[in-house]
Amino acid sequence: MTGELHCDACDKRLPEWSTAWRCDCGGTLSWNPADPAELLPGVTAENQVTLGEIVTPVLERGAVGYKLEYLSPSGSFKDRGARCVASCLKQMDVKAATLDSSGNAGAAMAAYMAAAGIEASVFVPEHASAAKRRQIAAYGARVVPVRGGDRSRVTAAAQAYAQGSGAVYASHLWSPYFIAGMRTLGAELAELGSLDAVIFPTGSGSLALGVAQGLTAHRQGSRERWPRLLGIQVAACAPLVEAFDAGADDLLPATRPQASIAEGILVARPPRAKAVLRAIRESGGELISVGDEQVRDAADTLWRHGIYAEPTSATAEAGRIELLRRDLLGPSDRAIVVLTGSALKTQA
Amino acid sequence: MTGELHCDACDKRLPEWSTAWRCDCGGTLSWNPADPAELLPGVTAENQVTLGEIVTPVLERGAVGYKLEYLSPSGSFKDRGARCVASCLKQMDVKAATLDSSGNAGAAMAAYMAAAGIEASVFVPEHASAAKRRQIAAYGARVVPVRGGDRSRVTAAAQAYAQGSGAVYASHLWSPYFIAGMRTLGAELAELGSLDAVIFPTGSGSLALGVAQGLTAHRQGSRERWPRLLGIQVAACAPLVEAFDAGADDLLPATRPQASIAEGILVARPPRAKAVLRAIRESGGELISVGDEQVRDAADTLWRHGIYAEPTSATAEAGRIELLRRDLLGPSDRAIVVLTGSALKTQA
Repeated sequence: MTGELHCDACDKRLPEWSTAWRCDCGGTLSWNPADPAELLPGVTAENQVTLGEIVTPVLERGAVGYKLEYLSPSGSFKDRGARCVASCLKQMDVKAATLDSSGNAGAAMAAYMAAAGIEASVFVPEHASAAKRRQIAAYGARVVPVRGGDRSRVTAAAQAYAQGSGAVYASHLWSPYFIAGMRTLGAELAELGSLDAVIFPTGSGSLALGVAQGLTAHRQGSRERWPRLLGIQVAACAPLVEAFDAGADDLLPATRPQASIAEGILVARPPRAKAVLRAIRESGGELISVGDEQVRDAADTLWRHGIYAEPTSATAEAGRIELLRRDLLGPSDRAIVVLTGSALKTQA
Repeated sequence: MTGELHCDACDKRLPEWSTAWRCDCGGTLSWNPADPAELLPGVTAENQVTLGEIVTPVLERGAVGYKLEYLSPSGSFKDRGARCVASCLKQMDVKAATLDSSGNAGAAMAAYMAAAGIEASVFVPEHASAAKRRQIAAYGARVVPVRGGDRSRVTAAAQAYAQGSGAVYASHLWSPYFIAGMRTLGAELAELGSLDAVIFPTGSGSLALGVAQGLTAHRQGSRERWPRLLGIQVAACAPLVEAFDAGADDLLPATRPQASIAEGILVARPPRAKAVLRAIRESGGELISVGDEQVRDAADTLWRHGIYAEPTSATAEAGRIELLRRDLLGPSDRAIVVLTGSALKTQA
């Protein structure tokens, strides 16, 4: 045993290996290592799934380093979480999994489930981009389109299917193993030496949690010399920013998200909002939003320098510029901008 | 000075830094290092262009290792050559370059020219895939579509533009720096220890030459313990296979290429054919062709294992299976299959 699961709401403990996607009380589950320096759940060697992961490179441009997560096997940083989920499910001898996603997470999960030999059913909104649906299907996953504009209906359909079929519900928004896998990003950032800030697009907040936990693990539980976590949302869907600005410790009542070019981070009700807000505040960080026009400009500028990140990722670059403008980031601060996904995905 | 250019036809010598794309006699130019252990032209540090290159990972599956070139910055192995061309042109203070390509090479060159601050004009066949054209344009390159089915008209248009505008003609098929950059692939393969075979898709043969030269450089000029180079073409366009089977040392009279799913390797008249044939023969290797149906099946199998390589790359996997069937490869031979490009590019 290298750890256990615990409920973030009621503190109930579960064994390390469990197919529960949430606590009986409705709370999110998190994986906690027995030894704080432990990075990942203790999957045995034969159950470790791999698709050729790398320590993603950092492209240096002045004081800014761009962390090129888009060079991950399926084209996005979600591979970190998906790899861990697939390995943990394989460890538990799970044969079928289901989840809901319209984008990078769906592709990442489909890829790693394929590598693990686990049958995957991916529920997607009917309006999900054709290119991303094609990628999910190419990996051999069953793609199930769900009608209706409301993203929560897609989630409900996937959960109902899981209950009916016995497939494990393995959504990246809920699976404790997904966040656990994201910890590898924090560990890689910790290897970069002294950083002032980490800037990243924020939808569900899994990246923020992964980085926070990964840094902690890498520093053996110590919290000294933490970079500030600077999370960027788009104005069209900024529930975490709204809660942050209001000084609230959880989401405010729901507002309906608008459409946006940053399609990968339109998460209206991130289940782990409390933990995300806490992690960002504890780092002395910020949560801000930027407009679609700023995102478009940032993407264009990145591309014209040969950096082919998808618009959702460019949110982080747009945020960096906005943070500088608001004096929330110093021009010589050593900042890492996390470019989460490949623009090759958005060409269709 | 770390080397010089020389003509492969008449042996004429040119200085290391030259914007000539071929010899006065019409022959191809190659970069030769002064010291055989030297890998790359001696570009000074401030002219080295980078987009976050990595040593591409090798995914182990039994005796086969898949070299994941698709995790390169622009999504294909052509980044190796393009990086070297852009760096060498920057070294010569070139401000504008032009080239012709319908695919990965065009995207790679556009990306690295953008990073180098060199204006790029990329001539493409009118029928080139929209996704690849979009990627080239996103990097800020001017995309010039050329009418007519014949690929040679696109080349002629790019060359005419170069002559008229003073832009340097920097085609990946001709530039000596492009092949020089491909040598890094051979050097990475040499680091993998004892290999029996390297299997790769073959269009112009730049990969074969890069691997051969890179292995030589890495082994300080020695040719001991070379893996066999196994080049795969598609039946629709297999001029190198035809010459190889005929025992010829250069291309046979032209045959008109057909359409194929392996769009990245449809090169009817590869300018460096003689050198490619020689390199493959000297390694004790083979040149074979596979049918589109085999390529499609191979791509499908790779994808269903989470390996998202474009169909052109799957030619190598189809070739591996065909080589096994023909007893040209042993089932326990340690083989590296080079997966050259990302399937994310072909989703549109």
